[in-house]
Amino acid sequence: MAKNKSTRSSRPKAEPRRSPCPVACLLDITGDRWSLLVVRDLFLGRSRFKDFSASPEGIPTNILSERLERLLRHGVVEQIPVEDSPKRLAYRLTAKGRALAPVLEAMRDWGLAWEKGTRSFRSGN
Amino acid sequence: MAKNKSTRSSRPKAEPRRSPCPVACLLDITGDRWSLLVVRDLFLGRSRFKDFSASPEGIPTNILSERLERLLRHGVVEQIPVEDSPKRLAYRLTAKGRALAPVLEAMRDWGLAWEKGTRSFRSGN
Repeated sequence: MAKNKSTRSSRPKAEPRRSPCPVACLLDITGDRWSLLVVRDLFLGRSRFKDFSASPEGIPTNILSERLERLLRHGVVEQIPVEDSPKRLAYRLTAKGRALAPVLEAMRDWGLAWEKGTRSFRSGN
Repeated sequence: MAKNKSTRSSRPKAEPRRSPCPVACLLDITGDRWSLLVVRDLFLGRSRFKDFSASPEGIPTNILSERLERLLRHGVVEQIPVEDSPKRLAYRLTAKGRALAPVLEAMRDWGLAWEKGTRSFRSGN
């Protein structure tokens, strides 16, 4: 993906941490409106760029490229060949990424409890 | 705070939700590098604008004003008079805000487990 390459060359490889606070460090990686939705999609079994792009929130493709690149750089996701067309790449969560499950679950539970009209994607979409 | 007022008038009162996903709805409110650090600070007992501003991550004051305004608008925090100078206002978490504790705890646990050199603010700073 050309977009990934241009993103990689135009920003430093590792942004400096803002503090040693573990919450701040997680937000350094995923502190935006989209990254944790990509992680959510991966937990829901989506793995391809086009799958993430088709999610209902409508992430713009340039933002998706940049977020995937950052998640790769921080070891939250890794790239794997697509089974039926091995020249193509898909994404999957690493152990570090799968360890975000309790964060996503706590976020889901909060949303379901406090934001009216929300519903979990696991039992619907 | 004049900054709050100008922020309020320059943006719509309620942004539309991107989807009914509870995770997306939480990210609509707190999906940035700073909001959950303000919530963290409130859990740590900080309550004044200057307290948040003095946190080690160094949030710029214009961003802090905007984030506090958004947290107020979504009922995550509320304003209270400062005890010893009641004309001044401080912030505290509402029930909706306190319900974010499991989210922050899961984030803290992930950071401590996966990001080397992090340490919890509760037992240090």
